[in-house]
Amino acid sequence: MGEQGQCEVTRRGGGRAGRQEQRASAVIEREPFLTRTLAPVELVSEEGLALLEQNAELILEQVGVEIRDYPDALRRFADAGADVDGTRVRFPRGLCRSLVSTAPAVYTQHARNPANSVQIGGNATVFAPNYGSPFVHDLDAGRRYATLTDFENFVKLAYLHPHLHHSGGTVCEPVDVPVSKRHLDMVYAHLRWSDKPFMGSVTAGERAADSVELARIGFGGDLADRTVMTSLVNASSPLIWDGSMLAAAEVYAAANQAVIVTPFILAGAMAPTTSAGAVAQTLAEALVGMSFVQLVRPGAPVVFGSFASSMSMQTGAPTFGTPEPAHVLYTLAAVARRLGLPFRSGGALTASKLPDAQAAYESTATMVPTMMAGVNFVLHAAGWLEGGLAVGYEKFVLDADQLGMLSTFVAGLDLSPNAQAIDAILAHEPGTHFLGTEHTLANFETAFWRSEVADNSSFEQWVDDGSLDAAQRANRLWKERLAAYEPPPIDDAVDAELREYVARRKAELPDTFA
Amino acid sequence: MGEQGQCEVTRRGGGRAGRQEQRASAVIEREPFLTRTLAPVELVSEEGLALLEQNAELILEQVGVEIRDYPDALRRFADAGADVDGTRVRFPRGLCRSLVSTAPAVYTQHARNPANSVQIGGNATVFAPNYGSPFVHDLDAGRRYATLTDFENFVKLAYLHPHLHHSGGTVCEPVDVPVSKRHLDMVYAHLRWSDKPFMGSVTAGERAADSVELARIGFGGDLADRTVMTSLVNASSPLIWDGSMLAAAEVYAAANQAVIVTPFILAGAMAPTTSAGAVAQTLAEALVGMSFVQLVRPGAPVVFGSFASSMSMQTGAPTFGTPEPAHVLYTLAAVARRLGLPFRSGGALTASKLPDAQAAYESTATMVPTMMAGVNFVLHAAGWLEGGLAVGYEKFVLDADQLGMLSTFVAGLDLSPNAQAIDAILAHEPGTHFLGTEHTLANFETAFWRSEVADNSSFEQWVDDGSLDAAQRANRLWKERLAAYEPPPIDDAVDAELREYVARRKAELPDTFA
Repeated sequence: MGEQGQCEVTRRGGGRAGRQEQRASAVIEREPFLTRTLAPVELVSEEGLALLEQNAELILEQVGVEIRDYPDALRRFADAGADVDGTRVRFPRGLCRSLVSTAPAVYTQHARNPANSVQIGGNATVFAPNYGSPFVHDLDAGRRYATLTDFENFVKLAYLHPHLHHSGGTVCEPVDVPVSKRHLDMVYAHLRWSDKPFMGSVTAGERAADSVELARIGFGGDLADRTVMTSLVNASSPLIWDGSMLAAAEVYAAANQAVIVTPFILAGAMAPTTSAGAVAQTLAEALVGMSFVQLVRPGAPVVFGSFASSMSMQTGAPTFGTPEPAHVLYTLAAVARRLGLPFRSGGALTASKLPDAQAAYESTATMVPTMMAGVNFVLHAAGWLEGGLAVGYEKFVLDADQLGMLSTFVAGLDLSPNAQAIDAILAHEPGTHFLGTEHTLANFETAFWRSEVADNSSFEQWVDDGSLDAAQRANRLWKERLAAYEPPPIDDAVDAELREYVARRKAELPDTFA
Repeated sequence: MGEQGQCEVTRRGGGRAGRQEQRASAVIEREPFLTRTLAPVELVSEEGLALLEQNAELILEQVGVEIRDYPDALRRFADAGADVDGTRVRFPRGLCRSLVSTAPAVYTQHARNPANSVQIGGNATVFAPNYGSPFVHDLDAGRRYATLTDFENFVKLAYLHPHLHHSGGTVCEPVDVPVSKRHLDMVYAHLRWSDKPFMGSVTAGERAADSVELARIGFGGDLADRTVMTSLVNASSPLIWDGSMLAAAEVYAAANQAVIVTPFILAGAMAPTTSAGAVAQTLAEALVGMSFVQLVRPGAPVVFGSFASSMSMQTGAPTFGTPEPAHVLYTLAAVARRLGLPFRSGGALTASKLPDAQAAYESTATMVPTMMAGVNFVLHAAGWLEGGLAVGYEKFVLDADQLGMLSTFVAGLDLSPNAQAIDAILAHEPGTHFLGTEHTLANFETAFWRSEVADNSSFEQWVDDGSLDAAQRANRLWKERLAAYEPPPIDDAVDAELREYVARRKAELPDTFA
């Protein structure tokens, strides 16, 4: 005897058309960010964490880091008590931990629409879309270089989705715009086509400065030290910090804008193959970057970031959805809590080229740990394909749908009297269905999380509907959404000033593509 | 700047052919079952669990259960102190908990090959394949009724896979064989084409008795009260136990064979829509079934089972990979631990008709909680499609691959000196890759879990390889595996006796298809 059931309930509104109507008319309730009630899962004992922290201190003390092309950072570190030898900086034990102690455990990133401002840190989780892909993928055109139009499309799709709390940053690389100028178009797009919080440019100090200036205009002329951007600076692992990233971090920190300090570790290449080794090295690298931020401006918001991946022993290619990066993620989330800092990691990561089963297995195998570990800022929460080389339109829709599932999960078990339903059960006769009972009717609409993409109908109904797979249904959805998109309001004068700034800077800057 | 990397390492053995050769020659190491080192995740406080347990006692006391067509059970319950009124049985508070206290917390299910015997309960997890589907699906032939050949194929595929610890039971329904006789072919197939542990028939008492007789022969003539089958009996929720299932349970318990007592709850239909209500009712129903087993034979092995699903409010169809059943799963796993009993739940569940992204998102969204909750026996760990109506060949390959990932994950973070790799890091210069270091070379082969199905190669390589999606790669794999299958050894006399028994019983039994 199988374990399957299919039972009819009273249809409301009559079939497909009625269902669509019902869905369209539903009020979209949304929280500006996710508040977790579940305690984070602790993978490693306190003793184990202390051991890994000691290893990071050993690395900082004995190897230290190289600071490339940024004498200002060398000077700041020397003044703070580090041992500077040329471009090598070694840190006495505990120095970095002491320096980062001025960073806030929680901060607010303000959005242009105050209803979309987010908390970063504590029991909050913020979902942001894919970042950094030079290619896009969709079922119609396949894989191709990303353009500014694609960039704007993903900003719009994130704006429209209730479970993407953040507009992200380089949602894809608009490669049809010169590298020297594309940051202007990107920041403008976030400010104009969305009113959710966003990320600024980090590829050079002056691009960060442009980002701050555009944000100033977008937020009405004065930031007054309010944090309105959270931007991503990466270490050049192993154990190098490059001047371009530090310059961007310095601009942001000076303006009280947040940075996420992220060692990018492909274990076996940028760190040892073993997870405990990757953890200690990530911590060491992140401590240096976060210390730099605190030296620029004590109290500036900073996020401890980790991007860790395993690799294929055949080809050296990064692999995703594997258990080892999940170990690293849980461990570093706990380390960040012990440091009292917000933590960024995880995402809907996959090596697949398509929105297929591999993409979904791998993405979920990272996203569930991301949630269970209590990650605060989740970049790449939707859209990522092909190890980050591509962002997919269908993948974006499918991943975003899962964010709703995860959000409901982390709310935990409802133990209210209504949820216990004990009176309903006690009033019930064995063998009769609950479909028509008062309790069911009172709870039916809100009882279960509903996927926007999953097909749960009978096989026969599914065949009648065209035998579509999930990616094909997602293909319909992103087109419907973009077609229905309407931009958030913006003051005409502000918009004009933003456009003027972009035009002026584009005229000043040379066209370069590197 | 994107977050992607692709770096070449020295190839060994030269390209695809070399890799396949290497893989084929590798010794398959396998554990007969999975031993978890991670503590189970606790979703609900002790007070919350106690409240739900009290609700179950209230249900047992005030509503009780209906026992249909099995006077023997009514008599046993009355003798034990229950209040029997016709076919309704109500239980004084605490009676069922007291009755199940004689059941073992952990037991061994012996396999025909002793190296494959499994522990059920405690920190062990056992993966078993799909169960109960009348249809099969593959990419070549699509969806069709299952046959005995399909049944045998899935037994062979589970036998071949190192992470499927158990051969399962009705891996699909061989609908080309009369219902009255198919249990004989199924049990024979498990005994002949596999040497892993398996499940017996539960659709009638006499079919359970046939299963026990065949097991006796297969295990060499005398079971001597050894547990060699773990079979699945389901409640007819809400709050009914049917005679056919109880009759099967009685046969098994009397022979010291294990049964999994599983309320099948589609919340909103067989229970209230709310998870806390579904938990209390599941516990009440399971306590009755497990109490019956202990009344038949105190100390007989029994597993607390739960199958819980949410439903679509549009169609009444079951939905999978949703957050609410995950809440139920975590909560009941904790309740089972408090009862001191092995727990069965979870699986690679999905409503999708195809091995597509939906199937993978939903399956992983159930399988990760299954592992994090510490489930002991995982039925449907591979192959399930379409709410259980179909088992898929490609889905089976894809799910089984993920079992390896989950197994590595639950081993937790390695904190050995080798894994800490502190000497390797301290001896390393910033900016140089770890690819060629002694530590990397010493750890490379075993460093990372390796998927058998994922494609991690470059986009260009993937195109050269035919631009296959995960399901297409899985299609190749199951065919290769079946082609390479060799049956485990069996004593010719034993095989002859098994065949004789099957032939004799088939001659005795009428052909019925219901």
